[in-house]
Amino acid sequence: MDWEKITARLNEFLAKGKHNELRGALMMLNPVDIAEYMKSLKGEQLVMVFRILPKDISADVFAYMDDGARKALIESIGDGEIRALISDMFLDDAVDFLEEMPANVVKRILQNADPHTREALNQLLKYPENSAGSIMTIEYCEFHAGTTARQALDEVKRTGIDKETIYTLYVIDRGRHLLGTVALRKLILAADGAPVETLMDASACVSVKTLDDQETVADTVRKYDLLSIPVVDNENRLVGIITADDIMDVIEEENTEDFEKMAALLPSDGEYLKTSAVQMAIKRMPWLIVLMFSAILTGSIILHFETLLAGAVGLTAFIPMLMDTGGNCGAQASTLVIRGLALNQVQFRDFFKVLWKEFRVSLMVGFVLAGLTFLRLLFFSEWDAGVAAVVATSLYCTVILSKAIGCSLPLLAKKVHLDPALMASPLITTIVDMCSLMIFFSIASHYLL
Amino acid sequence: MDWEKITARLNEFLAKGKHNELRGALMMLNPVDIAEYMKSLKGEQLVMVFRILPKDISADVFAYMDDGARKALIESIGDGEIRALISDMFLDDAVDFLEEMPANVVKRILQNADPHTREALNQLLKYPENSAGSIMTIEYCEFHAGTTARQALDEVKRTGIDKETIYTLYVIDRGRHLLGTVALRKLILAADGAPVETLMDASACVSVKTLDDQETVADTVRKYDLLSIPVVDNENRLVGIITADDIMDVIEEENTEDFEKMAALLPSDGEYLKTSAVQMAIKRMPWLIVLMFSAILTGSIILHFETLLAGAVGLTAFIPMLMDTGGNCGAQASTLVIRGLALNQVQFRDFFKVLWKEFRVSLMVGFVLAGLTFLRLLFFSEWDAGVAAVVATSLYCTVILSKAIGCSLPLLAKKVHLDPALMASPLITTIVDMCSLMIFFSIASHYLL
Repeated sequence: MDWEKITARLNEFLAKGKHNELRGALMMLNPVDIAEYMKSLKGEQLVMVFRILPKDISADVFAYMDDGARKALIESIGDGEIRALISDMFLDDAVDFLEEMPANVVKRILQNADPHTREALNQLLKYPENSAGSIMTIEYCEFHAGTTARQALDEVKRTGIDKETIYTLYVIDRGRHLLGTVALRKLILAADGAPVETLMDASACVSVKTLDDQETVADTVRKYDLLSIPVVDNENRLVGIITADDIMDVIEEENTEDFEKMAALLPSDGEYLKTSAVQMAIKRMPWLIVLMFSAILTGSIILHFETLLAGAVGLTAFIPMLMDTGGNCGAQASTLVIRGLALNQVQFRDFFKVLWKEFRVSLMVGFVLAGLTFLRLLFFSEWDAGVAAVVATSLYCTVILSKAIGCSLPLLAKKVHLDPALMASPLITTIVDMCSLMIFFSIASHYLL
Repeated sequence: MDWEKITARLNEFLAKGKHNELRGALMMLNPVDIAEYMKSLKGEQLVMVFRILPKDISADVFAYMDDGARKALIESIGDGEIRALISDMFLDDAVDFLEEMPANVVKRILQNADPHTREALNQLLKYPENSAGSIMTIEYCEFHAGTTARQALDEVKRTGIDKETIYTLYVIDRGRHLLGTVALRKLILAADGAPVETLMDASACVSVKTLDDQETVADTVRKYDLLSIPVVDNENRLVGIITADDIMDVIEEENTEDFEKMAALLPSDGEYLKTSAVQMAIKRMPWLIVLMFSAILTGSIILHFETLLAGAVGLTAFIPMLMDTGGNCGAQASTLVIRGLALNQVQFRDFFKVLWKEFRVSLMVGFVLAGLTFLRLLFFSEWDAGVAAVVATSLYCTVILSKAIGCSLPLLAKKVHLDPALMASPLITTIVDMCSLMIFFSIASHYLL
C-alpha cells in the first residue's frame, strides 16, 4: 500500500471518529511514519491522535515529530501527560527536543519531570551545542570490574528495556574510570562465573571526551566502525554513550554545514521549507556583500587597462570565458582538497604533494583547454593568430594559477584552524578572477599594443 | 601515548627483530590502527608483521588495509594462508576487497576459497556496483516461524560468533519470505517456549531490495534509525542484511559524489592522494570544456553591445561584479535546494513554494546589495547618478533572476530524473552570467545612449 492510500485511510477513520480503527491502523506503521502522518494534523486533531496512541509508542512517535507540532502538543496536554511522556522518552531524544523549545516550555517540562529525570536532563542541557556531551545518552549498561558474566546478564535482563543499547556493555573501576567494553555476544557465550573484565575486547577501548565536537565523534565512530562509543570526562570517568543511529544524523548535519559554507552561506539549523525568508536573507547577505565588494577590485583591474580596451573593445568578450574557466578550475581543486581534509584523507603535511599533483593536472587540463581555444579562434573567428595566441596563453596560465590557489587555500586554512570549507568556489572565484584578468591584460598589452 | 611514539616503538621492535614484543604491542591496538601502521611498511616487512598477528585479528586488520598493500600481501603469501584469511573475513568485507583487485588476483583467491565461501562470493560479486546486493552480507541469524525463543537463543550462542550482527534476528516462513525482525533484547527477555514470530516488532518491518541503489538504503536506514536492514529479492525472500557501520561509509561516499558533481567534476572512487594526475585530469576536463564553450555565448553578448562599450569602456569594469554576484546568489539557492532534495526535505511538488520563498529572499537581498552599490557609486566614484541607477537596477534584476534560476533547475532536474547535484554553481554561474550581462547592457544602452 503506498503512502497516499495509507494517509487517505487514516484520514477517513479520523473524520468518522472511528478511534479504535484508527489506533489499529496506526499500530501497523513504524513510529517514524506515524510522526510523518501527524505532520498533516493540526490543533485538536493532533492532540486527539496522539492520545489514541498506546503509551509504549507515543514517546517514540513524539521523538520523530517536528518542533512546531511538539510545541503545540505540549501546550495542549496536561502536566501528568507531560511527566509520562518525558519519562518514556530516551534521555538524548528529550534533550534534543528541549534544546529546540522556548524557555517557558522547557521550564514547564522540567517542573513536571520526576526528580531523577530532571537532574539528568539539567546535566545534559549544560553541555555546549554540538559537543559530544550534548548528544550522548546516560542510559547504558555499566558494570564494575569483578561482576560475573551471570550477574551482568541478569542485570541486563532486568534493566535492559530502558537502555538505549544493551549490545555493548561498559566496565568501570571503583572510581568510575572506563576500563573497556564487553560485547553482549561475548557475555552470552561466556562461562557464568567469568568476571566481566576478562571478556573485554583486547584492543584498546576507543572513547571521546564530553567537550569533543560532534564532528570528531562522527569521524572516530566511522573510522573504527563502531555501533556505539563511550563518552568520558577529563578524568576518563564514564559519563555517557553515543549510538550509531545518532551518528548518522551528525554526519549529514556536518555535510550540510560544509555544503552551505562552500556556497557562501552562513550555516543554518533548520530545514529549507521551514526557514523564513527573512532568516534566509540574513544567512545569505554577509558573504554576498563581502564578495561583491571584492569584485570591485577585479573591476578596477579592467579600468587600469582602459587604454588597451578602448583600442580593442572586442577583447572584453574574452573576460567571461577566462573568469569562468579559472573559477571552475579553482573550484574543482578546492572541492577535492576540502573533501579530502573532511574525510581525513589529506593532511596539511601533504601540502607539497598536493601542489605538485595539481600542477601536473593543470598542465594537462590547461593544454587541452588552451589548445581548443587557440584552434577555435584561429579557424572559427575573425581574430588573427596573435590574439589567438595571447588568449590561449592567458588561459593556460589562468588554469595553472587557479588550480594552485584552489588547492592551497583550504590547506592553509586548516593550518591556521579556519574551516577549509570557507575556501571554496565563491572565494576562490573572486581571487582567481583578479589573477586571470591581470594575466590576460598584461600579456595582451605587451604583445598587442 | 600519541601515534608517533606508538609507531616509533613498533618500528624499534621490528628493526631489532623482537617479534614477540612486536606481537604484544600490536595487540594493544585497535585493528584499524594496526592497518594504519602497516601502511608504512613495504615488501617483506609487511608480510612479516602480518604473519605475526594472531589469526583472529589478522582478517580484521586485512579488511582495513589499503588496496595496494593488500595486493602486495596476497601476492607474497601461500595458498593455504589465503584460504584461511578469506574464510576468517566477513563476506561483505571480502567482496569489497575483491571488487578492487585485478582479475588474476581475484581468480587466485576464489580458487583457494572453500567451496561454500566461493559460491557465496561469486553470488555477491554479481550484483551491480553500489546496489544493496553488492554491499550486503549473508552472515546473519535467521529463524523459521515456529522456532521457540530457547531454540533461537541456543542457535545464536552456537553460530553467533561468525555473524556480522546477532542483535537483530530475522524471521522467515517456509518459502524464505521475510516475516519480520526480532531484537536480541526481546529474545533474551522472552519465555523459553515463546515462538519467535510472537516476539517480532509490531510495526511493519522495513526492508530494501537487492537492486536498490545504496543511496536509497542509506536514506531508509537513516530515516528509521536502524542498526541493520534486511535485503530481500523481488519475491520478498530474505537474501542478506546491511549493517549501520557500512551505511556510514555509504553516506560519506554519496556526499562526496554530490560535492564532486557540484564542482563540475565527474565522480571518482579513489582518495585524492591515491588518484593519478592523468585520471584526475580526465575527470575534470569534460565539464570544463562544456562550460568554457558556453562562456563564449556570454562573450558574444558583450560583442553584441560593442558600440555601447566603445563609447563607455569604463562600463566593462562592472562586468565582474555583476557576474560574480549573480553566480553566488544562484549557487546559494541551488545548493540549498540540492541539499534539501538529497535529505528528502524538499520535493518537486514544492516547486512554487520554493520559487515564492526565493523570490521574497531575493527581494530583500537584492535591495541591500543594489542599495549599497548605488550609494557607493554615487558617493565614492566618479560615475554620475544615471550610471549608478543603471548598475544598481541591473544588479537587483540579476539577484532576483539568479535566485529563481538557481532554485528551479535542481527541482526540474529531479523531475526528469537527472541528478540535481549537476545543477550547481558551475552551470548556474554560466547561465546567470549571460542573463546578468544581457540585463545590464540592455538597461545601459536604453538609458545611457
